Amino acid sequence: MLNVSERLGEPILDSMHFLNEIVERYPQAISFAPGRPSADLFVVDESLELLRKHAPTILGKPGLATDKALNEIAQYGRTNGIIHHHVARQLLQDEGLTIDPEHLVITNGCQEAMFILLLTLFTPSRDVLVATEPVYQGITAAAKLLGIQTVPICLRADGPDLDELSMAIQALRREGKVPRALYTIPDFDNPSGNTTSLQTRQRLCALARRENMLIFEDSPYRMLRYEGAPPPLLKAIDPEQVVLLGSYSKTLFPGLRIGYLSGDVEVSLSGRVVPLSEVASKAKSLSSINTSPLMQATLAAQLIEKGHRLGAHVAVLADHYRGRRDALLAAMERHFRFPRDSSGVHWNRPEGGFFVTVHVPFEFSMQTMRECAATVDVITVPLSLFAFATAHDRAMRLSFSAVPYDDIDEGVRRLSSFVTSFAARSGSRLGIPA
Amino acid sequence: MLNVSERLGEPILDSMHFLNEIVERYPQAISFAPGRPSADLFVVDESLELLRKHAPTILGKPGLATDKALNEIAQYGRTNGIIHHHVARQLLQDEGLTIDPEHLVITNGCQEAMFILLLTLFTPSRDVLVATEPVYQGITAAAKLLGIQTVPICLRADGPDLDELSMAIQALRREGKVPRALYTIPDFDNPSGNTTSLQTRQRLCALARRENMLIFEDSPYRMLRYEGAPPPLLKAIDPEQVVLLGSYSKTLFPGLRIGYLSGDVEVSLSGRVVPLSEVASKAKSLSSINTSPLMQATLAAQLIEKGHRLGAHVAVLADHYRGRRDALLAAMERHFRFPRDSSGVHWNRPEGGFFVTVHVPFEFSMQTMRECAATVDVITVPLSLFAFATAHDRAMRLSFSAVPYDDIDEGVRRLSSFVTSFAARSGSRLGIPA
Repeated sequence: MLNVSERLGEPILDSMHFLNEIVERYPQAISFAPGRPSADLFVVDESLELLRKHAPTILGKPGLATDKALNEIAQYGRTNGIIHHHVARQLLQDEGLTIDPEHLVITNGCQEAMFILLLTLFTPSRDVLVATEPVYQGITAAAKLLGIQTVPICLRADGPDLDELSMAIQALRREGKVPRALYTIPDFDNPSGNTTSLQTRQRLCALARRENMLIFEDSPYRMLRYEGAPPPLLKAIDPEQVVLLGSYSKTLFPGLRIGYLSGDVEVSLSGRVVPLSEVASKAKSLSSINTSPLMQATLAAQLIEKGHRLGAHVAVLADHYRGRRDALLAAMERHFRFPRDSSGVHWNRPEGGFFVTVHVPFEFSMQTMRECAATVDVITVPLSLFAFATAHDRAMRLSFSAVPYDDIDEGVRRLSSFVTSFAARSGSRLGIPA
Repeated sequence: MLNVSERLGEPILDSMHFLNEIVERYPQAISFAPGRPSADLFVVDESLELLRKHAPTILGKPGLATDKALNEIAQYGRTNGIIHHHVARQLLQDEGLTIDPEHLVITNGCQEAMFILLLTLFTPSRDVLVATEPVYQGITAAAKLLGIQTVPICLRADGPDLDELSMAIQALRREGKVPRALYTIPDFDNPSGNTTSLQTRQRLCALARRENMLIFEDSPYRMLRYEGAPPPLLKAIDPEQVVLLGSYSKTLFPGLRIGYLSGDVEVSLSGRVVPLSEVASKAKSLSSINTSPLMQATLAAQLIEKGHRLGAHVAVLADHYRGRRDALLAAMERHFRFPRDSSGVHWNRPEGGFFVTVHVPFEFSMQTMRECAATVDVITVPLSLFAFATAHDRAMRLSFSAVPYDDIDEGVRRLSSFVTSFAARSGSRLGIPA
C-alpha cells in the first residue's frame, strides 16, 4: 500500500466536495448554496452553430469548407491558445484595457490560470501568497496542495484592509519570507459579495508597487454589475504589478472551461528578463498541453458574432440576476425583521455578482448548516468554509444566482424562522421580530 | 523584478518549443518531426452533430429538448467527469478490461492525468519516478517542474530492461529514496516505436508487485496496431499495480483534450485506505475544476453511436497509418543502401503507432538537425531530445503519421544523401552504398 502525502488529507481540499454532498443529501431543500450561473441563460446550441459558421475565419482561412476547418482546429496547436487576438479585442472594447495578445495565456478555466501562477511564480520554501479573507478556496487549496504558505488579510466592505496588508508584509519579511502576490476578487467577491472602492484600488496598487508584490486580480463576475458605475480594473491602474485572471464561465457558460491570464508582467528567469507568458507557457504545456481549441473557437465565434463586445449579451444576464438579487434583498427585509443595530443580524447589498453575506449572532458552523437543512429544508454555506482559520464563524453566504424566483421568498422565510429559533436556543438576543 | 524558479529555465522544459521553432523556421521542409495524428482523419463536424443528437441521453434525460440538454451539460459538474460509464464500456468492449466507472478520472488530455499522478502520489523529497529511456518528455519535464527526481532505465526492443530496473530500485533504496512508479509506453513507444513483449510485460508486473511500485501505463497509440496480435495491457496483467493512462487524441482528435486515468488502485491517506480516484479528484478540482463537459459529451456521443466499440473506426485509421509506415520502411530500404551489419545505419519496424527510430554512426545533435533542415530541407528529431542525459545521441525519431505520401520517398532520399555526406565528413565508415 502506498502512502500519499498528508497534504491531500487537509480539510480545505474537501470543502468543494462538502458542498456537493450537502446538496445531494437534501435534494428537496431550497438551496442558496451553489455559486453557479443559471443554465437557462446559456446559449450552447447557438454557440456550436456559430462555431461551424466562423471556424474558417478563426483559422485564418475564410474560404475553407466547414468540416475541413473544424478538423484543422481540432489538431494539436499553440500552447498559449489560438484565440488570444479575440480575447484581447473583447478586453479592449468592453473594458478599455490594452493587452498585447501575444502575452495572453488561454487556460482550462480560470482555475488552471491560478494553478499555473502558483507553479511558475512561487518557490514554496520562500514565497508566500497573501489573500483576502474570507477567500475563494480554489486558490488557497491549490497553494496548500503545492506546499505554498498562505497568509490572510481581512476583506472589508470597501476592499482589502491595507493596514493589515502592510503589517503582514513586514512580518513576512522579518521571517525571511517573500510576500509574492496578493490574491483578491475586487468586483463582487466570492464569497462576500463586497466590491473594492476606487480609493482602495489606487492605494492597493501603490502599495503593491512599493513592495514589489504582484496582485492576482480574479475577475469572473465583473461584467455582471446591477447598478452603479464600475471602478477601474486593478490591471488598468497598474499594468506592471497586476496579473488579470479572466473567465467566460459566468458570461457565457462554464462548460467552455475557458479562462485566461494576462502574462505581460516581466519576470526574471536565470538573470534574463522575460514576460510571464513565456514561463507560464512552459507550465501550461506540462499541465495540459493546451486548452481545447474547439472550445476556444466556440468562444471566439461568439465574440466575432457580437463584434467582440459582450456588453449587450451581458445586459440580459444582468437583468436576470439583478431581479434575483432584488428579490432576495426584499425577502430579507420582509422576513428578517430583527432590529438592525442590536440583533446582530445584518447583511450587505452587493452591486453585482452572485453572493450576499448574512451575519447572525451565533456560530453558523457546518453542523448549523446541516441542522438548517434538516429542520427547515434550506441550505446556505457557512462563511467559515471560506476562511483560513476560525474567523467569519458568525456568517453565511447566500447565492441568489441559481434559485428559482418562487423559492427565494419561501427560502428566506424559513431561514428567518431557523435563525430565530436557533438564536433563542443558543441564548442570543435578537430583539423582538416586528 | 520578480525572480522565478531556476527550474523553469531547465532545457527539458523547452524541448517541445524547440520542435515548433524548427518546423516554423523551415516551412518548406519535408518534416518527419511532429508526432501528430493526421487531421484528414478527424470527424469533428460529425462529432458535433452527434453531440446534439445524443445530448439528452448523455444527460440521462432522453426526452429533453436538444438546446436545454446542451445547456445543462454546459453547467459546472462532477470533478472526475460525466462520461465515466461510457469510457468504461469502451474499455470493456475494445480491450476486455473491467474498470469500475466510479474510479475513472476524466482529464484534460492524458497530460493532465500524468500531472495529477505526480501531484498526488509523489512527495518530492522522498519519492522517485523511474522512466524508460528514451522517454516522452511530457512526463519527465512535468516531474522536473514539480521538483520530483527521475531515474532512467533503458528501453530495449522488447521493453524495459528489467535488470537495470532492479538495480535502479536497489540503488534508490540504499539512498533512502522510494521508487514510487515506473512510467512506460508499452505499445509503440514515443519516441522509439518499440513494443514491450508479453514475457517482459509479465516479468515487469511481477517485479513491480514485489517492489510495491506502481506502473504508469501510458497507452495513446495502442489501438493503432498495423500487424500482429496485441499483447495484454499491463493493467490487465496486474490491475492492482498499474495505473492506465488513456487518450482519445489519436483515435478521435486531439482537440477534444480528453484523457483519463484508472484510479482504482488503493492508496493510504493519513492511515485510511482510499482509491486513487478520491485523492486524484482533489488535485483535479484544483488544477482545472473539471474537464469540459461539452468535449466529454462529444466523445460520449461518438461512443454511443459506435456501440462503445472504436474497433471499426480505428481500423480505417490503421489502414491509413499502416500505408505510411510501409511507405517509409520501403523508402528506407530503397535509399538507405548501407550494409546493415557494419555501417551503423539501422532502424526498427514498429508494429503500430507513429514512430520509427533510425540509428546513424555519428552524433545526431540539435545542431545536426538544423544542418539537415538547412542543407536538404528535411526535419527529423534527435533521439537525444527524449533522453535524460547524453544517451541516444546517435539516433533520430522519424514520425510517419502526418507526412504526405508523395513526400515520404523524396524525404528519405534526401535524408540518405545527408547521412552519407555527413558520415563522410565526420569520418564514419558507412561502407559503400550499393
